[in-house]
Amino acid sequence: MSAVSSTPGDTPDSPAEFYETDAQKLAVATAEALLGAAEGGIPIGAALFSADGRLLGSGHNRRVQDHDASMHAETNAFRNAGRQQSYRGTVMVTTLSPCWYCSGLVRQFGISRVIVGDDLTFRGGQEWLAENGVDITVVNNEALIAMMGEFVELNPRLWNEDIGTD
Amino acid sequence: MSAVSSTPGDTPDSPAEFYETDAQKLAVATAEALLGAAEGGIPIGAALFSADGRLLGSGHNRRVQDHDASMHAETNAFRNAGRQQSYRGTVMVTTLSPCWYCSGLVRQFGISRVIVGDDLTFRGGQEWLAENGVDITVVNNEALIAMMGEFVELNPRLWNEDIGTD
Repeated sequence: MSAVSSTPGDTPDSPAEFYETDAQKLAVATAEALLGAAEGGIPIGAALFSADGRLLGSGHNRRVQDHDASMHAETNAFRNAGRQQSYRGTVMVTTLSPCWYCSGLVRQFGISRVIVGDDLTFRGGQEWLAENGVDITVVNNEALIAMMGEFVELNPRLWNEDIGTD
Repeated sequence: MSAVSSTPGDTPDSPAEFYETDAQKLAVATAEALLGAAEGGIPIGAALFSADGRLLGSGHNRRVQDHDASMHAETNAFRNAGRQQSYRGTVMVTTLSPCWYCSGLVRQFGISRVIVGDDLTFRGGQEWLAENGVDITVVNNEALIAMMGEFVELNPRLWNEDIGTD
């Protein structure tokens, strides 16, 4: 797997890999979530793909690891994709429904499609994105729902901090 | 001035300073914008204050300097404020109306008030925030409008990249 570091501008190792199916794309985000969990962080992962399925960047929530409240999984994946002149046609895959912050990212930069691994544990701005022309696919993967549900149950204070609920 | 670096978790130098008026708060964001301009970056600055006017963190757009598309001024100020358990009562001051990405940040984390230095050059999600209970104050400072207007005119490609318009 490539582009898992948190350094801006990371790009996938050559040769470029293509992730054609939603399941393949979600697997990249899931691997990021598991990496985050292994680091002791909040287990949410994301990845940004070009229209033709090339991995532009992936990342995971880094609140605990970097003490960085601004690095939700989607923003971290976006950051790791480096500067792009256009996001037209790109696909953001996230293990958990994007919060308002990450939904705003998708809308502002014109990301075309979002694949959501779990919208049962948490649901952010995905309907708002759909109303504004973003193609939303909800997978509701059982393993992701179980993992995130357990995390929230065991870490309510950290989870509430991450979504700004006090 | 304190907390101008981009390292997460920065806090103001002691003794704590209090910024009571909107003009004092906007001056901190403006200084950040000017610092960004001096670095060759996009001249947008922001700062986050506690309810009682203590500077929690400030920052500026870092797209050019760090090659980091995720660091708009508001997200950089939020990042530099470090991890907070609650944002209730906090005030975000920005030299330019917050885009959807930064508006999403304000909504998700429950930032209570936004002071906007310029909403003529660009207007993002400020009405949406007002509809969702955020107190919005628009200053429309002439010097900020002139600075940002000139920047956009001279750097259309970079500006469009920063707001995701292709």
